[in-house]
Amino acid sequence: MTYNLLKGKKGIIFGALDHKSIAWKTAEKAHEEGAVFTLTNTPTALRFGEINELAEKTNSIVIPADATNIEDLENLVTKSMELLGGKVDFILHSIGMSINVRKKRVYNDLRYDFFAKTLDISALSFHKLLQVCHKHDAINEWGSVVALSYIAAQRVLYGYNDMADAKALLESIGRSFGYIYGRDKKIRVNTISQSPTMTTAGSGVKGIDGLLDFTERMSPLGNATAEECADFTCVMFSDLTRKVTMQNIFHDGGFSNMGMSLKAMMQYNRGLDNPIDPETIDD
Amino acid sequence: MTYNLLKGKKGIIFGALDHKSIAWKTAEKAHEEGAVFTLTNTPTALRFGEINELAEKTNSIVIPADATNIEDLENLVTKSMELLGGKVDFILHSIGMSINVRKKRVYNDLRYDFFAKTLDISALSFHKLLQVCHKHDAINEWGSVVALSYIAAQRVLYGYNDMADAKALLESIGRSFGYIYGRDKKIRVNTISQSPTMTTAGSGVKGIDGLLDFTERMSPLGNATAEECADFTCVMFSDLTRKVTMQNIFHDGGFSNMGMSLKAMMQYNRGLDNPIDPETIDD
Amino acid sequence: MTYNLLKGKKGIIFGALDHKSIAWKTAEKAHEEGAVFTLTNTPTALRFGEINELAEKTNSIVIPADATNIEDLENLVTKSMELLGGKVDFILHSIGMSINVRKKRVYNDLRYDFFAKTLDISALSFHKLLQVCHKHDAINEWGSVVALSYIAAQRVLYGYNDMADAKALLESIGRSFGYIYGRDKKIRVNTISQSPTMTTAGSGVKGIDGLLDFTERMSPLGNATAEECADFTCVMFSDLTRKVTMQNIFHDGGFSNMGMSLKAMMQYNRGLDNPIDPETIDD
Amino acid sequence: MTYNLLKGKKGIIFGALDHKSIAWKTAEKAHEEGAVFTLTNTPTALRFGEINELAEKTNSIVIPADATNIEDLENLVTKSMELLGGKVDFILHSIGMSINVRKKRVYNDLRYDFFAKTLDISALSFHKLLQVCHKHDAINEWGSVVALSYIAAQRVLYGYNDMADAKALLESIGRSFGYIYGRDKKIRVNTISQSPTMTTAGSGVKGIDGLLDFTERMSPLGNATAEECADFTCVMFSDLTRKVTMQNIFHDGGFSNMGMSLKAMMQYNRGLDNPIDPETIDD
Repeated sequence: MTYNLLKGKKGIIFGALDHKSIAWKTAEKAHEEGAVFTLTNTPTALRFGEINELAEKTNSIVIPADATNIEDLENLVTKSMELLGGKVDFILHSIGMSINVRKKRVYNDLRYDFFAKTLDISALSFHKLLQVCHKHDAINEWGSVVALSYIAAQRVLYGYNDMADAKALLESIGRSFGYIYGRDKKIRVNTISQSPTMTTAGSGVKGIDGLLDFTERMSPLGNATAEECADFTCVMFSDLTRKVTMQNIFHDGGFSNMGMSLKAMMQYNRGLDNPIDPETIDD
Repeated sequence: MTYNLLKGKKGIIFGALDHKSIAWKTAEKAHEEGAVFTLTNTPTALRFGEINELAEKTNSIVIPADATNIEDLENLVTKSMELLGGKVDFILHSIGMSINVRKKRVYNDLRYDFFAKTLDISALSFHKLLQVCHKHDAINEWGSVVALSYIAAQRVLYGYNDMADAKALLESIGRSFGYIYGRDKKIRVNTISQSPTMTTAGSGVKGIDGLLDFTERMSPLGNATAEECADFTCVMFSDLTRKVTMQNIFHDGGFSNMGMSLKAMMQYNRGLDNPIDPETIDD
Repeated sequence: MTYNLLKGKKGIIFGALDHKSIAWKTAEKAHEEGAVFTLTNTPTALRFGEINELAEKTNSIVIPADATNIEDLENLVTKSMELLGGKVDFILHSIGMSINVRKKRVYNDLRYDFFAKTLDISALSFHKLLQVCHKHDAINEWGSVVALSYIAAQRVLYGYNDMADAKALLESIGRSFGYIYGRDKKIRVNTISQSPTMTTAGSGVKGIDGLLDFTERMSPLGNATAEECADFTCVMFSDLTRKVTMQNIFHDGGFSNMGMSLKAMMQYNRGLDNPIDPETIDD
Repeated sequence: MTYNLLKGKKGIIFGALDHKSIAWKTAEKAHEEGAVFTLTNTPTALRFGEINELAEKTNSIVIPADATNIEDLENLVTKSMELLGGKVDFILHSIGMSINVRKKRVYNDLRYDFFAKTLDISALSFHKLLQVCHKHDAINEWGSVVALSYIAAQRVLYGYNDMADAKALLESIGRSFGYIYGRDKKIRVNTISQSPTMTTAGSGVKGIDGLLDFTERMSPLGNATAEECADFTCVMFSDLTRKVTMQNIFHDGGFSNMGMSLKAMMQYNRGLDNPIDPETIDD
């Protein structure tokens, strides 16, 4: 079902890696809802090549950009305005990466050059993007910017590591720039805190299977899928959410406000009936 | 601009008093977006008579109900299903009243029969409505229930009095029943925390003018209007927000995440240049 | 170890039922730290008789009071001032009860007379107490009032039922009256959100054993005990926390800010290895 | 009044610049309460020389350290253990600095090398400190680590700039490491969110005078002073708060939970009576 929610709207979508990506689904949905947009990702990510399939399907152009690089962002923003014929109305930031996580460094043994890189890629890139857009006056009045976040910004999930801190920083940047952009240009900035999602990126997180089962049973509506997140993101881009800004909205089937569900407790108790040998526990 | 967002959807809308009401605007918008629904309010409120104008405009039937009365609610719910030809997809709860506020009793001199009444009308009515709907299996799978709230549930605003406590209770009931209804029927329950709004009900709040100026200057996008709240409420009723539940979402131009804006500070400082005689301060 | 933290301070302690009660432990600790106080509970609770042991041990007088009854509260407050020789410096509110829970009524089948009773006993009693104190000018400047709460005020725990809503209301009343009492008398009002605790009252909560195991493994420091809560409560009564007010402070070993711990996940995964027959799940 | 709250405890205190500093007051108070500790600050800050006065008064040794430098931190931690005769029990992190703020760069015109520096000094230094302590096993079981934060981590205050994002990151690091340190060593990590304070550092924040007046009138107990913050910090170091961890506790006279007070509204309205010429508004 489509509604022409984004008819006539122009945008930029970061982070579509493959068909599992939330950004990929958002691009498909935004296209169905009448938007035109450019797609972008790092040159490395683009080399995987699947994005061309998406570009073709959504009639989009792909512009490579390292989101931590100001010149790349300026090129992206100005080219997007040229290609789309004017300022944009929406932007999706869906970027995150931690070398500490990849290298399996635990949180009390981080490398600080990696930590700085995590913050730069996953959070400061959002500020850089917004600052470049602000300088180039690249977003229309009542435009909407969304970045994808995760509840690790508020609560500790073992193994999520320095990405948690990056998400907290990302959300803060959303609030801080949301004030500036709202006041100056009537543009809103929000983050969507999505259920853990089995994307190609997400599948690298330690112990993700057990966690997904837990969050599925804890959430009264179950985990939100990438498609559902795309739907909600398009709503946040539409003209029907104009006065929502500086918010972090949980799109998670209710998980964030659950302390314990019956289903999760039953599963947990099942584990209690089968005690583990404490000797086998390690980090 | 309309999108057929609620095409084929059925609903019940509480609390449309006159054309300033958020519920009134929501009814108009839901109608434009393709929904059919019943309207309800207390017999007293209905006597003002304006609601018939809305009923005519939106092709709706008005069913009187005291939302604290189970029989009235059962009549409303069963009649609505009859009239609309089946279960409903959405419900708006926009109800609040405090006799303590009306009688100008300050928070340290409340009457407890009034306090209980405030809670019953403004918060327990929401539980009663949900319980009646649950018993009558009155809401379709993936249906959506919204109650209107206010930031006084989180932060103290002088003069808002026991309504603040009622809103905190209302939001808690939304979470608690959201778990039940999500788990059992895939139905979501949320509250929308709206900017202070100059409705007929809102205009009774003490010092509302100064407060509206303050929140207008604090909010980067300004206060959200009743129309804008109606837009957002319809979004929450649509199929594009299916996995958002148990949340309290701020629809307030950014106010909730502001500590101090430049505009509000300038106005405040202006006051500092014109000091008040402390003798003149009272409650 | 004692510090004379409450030397010369006078107080009133509600809710000491037996030696497991947090209020009981707080009375013992406050006594050790140099405070004098009266003890109170409902006539019914007093009939169990253990409180006399506590009164003797702490050199206190027991004054029966139904905390929902204004006359009882007035008698308690004025008698306490008489007995203690002046205004009090601290009050502990540790009261909660739900007939719906006792009668095993689920949240979508509540009786509203019971619900009103839950709110009256568990939350409105706090307002009544504060209002009575305010009218009788019963608390010294820089005095401190604490009520015990639980994280169910923020997040849904199945089976906690209408007590969750009561705790949300309790915390809101703490904020609302904290403003009044701070502004008027420099008196602070806070709630402490304590780990689930195996008190006589707590042991009635459905599925409490599994939950305690879960929160123990989730909390990096483990569940907080009643003794530890007593320590923290005394700190909140002391002169060292004078500018903390209107807060809800989590005293829970870190549980409130955990999303998933390694220990809890391992136990949960253990359950996944031993799947349950879905047919056996009920509420 | 002293209580021997920290008798026999050893610690490290960062950030005492001059007698206005919260860290300075905390050192004085900790000394009075029986603690021994080392003091540290950057070589640049130490050159101002006042810290020697504090060292003398509290019988402490000063160890210079750049808190962003691992070797400096290792030297500080190992030397402190040598000097104090064993592991420490408490640490205060009171560090923050933004070159963007100093250079008056607005939030939409930041230099990213400065931004990275802000984060490194004001937030990553906290992780570095904790990681160094963890590696050197430098903190006793049931030890307590506190970092000072500010409400800008949650809400935007114009002019606070990238320091707001740094505080959000700092609080996240406190949570993330609090999990690790609690689980591994029973050590707690918290942040205290203090009222705006007229320290030498704080006085550099734009528009601080008007803001202090506003927060004073908004907070029912008024702004918390540096001395009061020192009291509360010592409480958090004591054995009476052992199960509080991963929290951000507001020590702010109630400001954080206020939406609008009577006093602030009156002052604001006073400004409304004296409207400003909109032409004169700029950033």
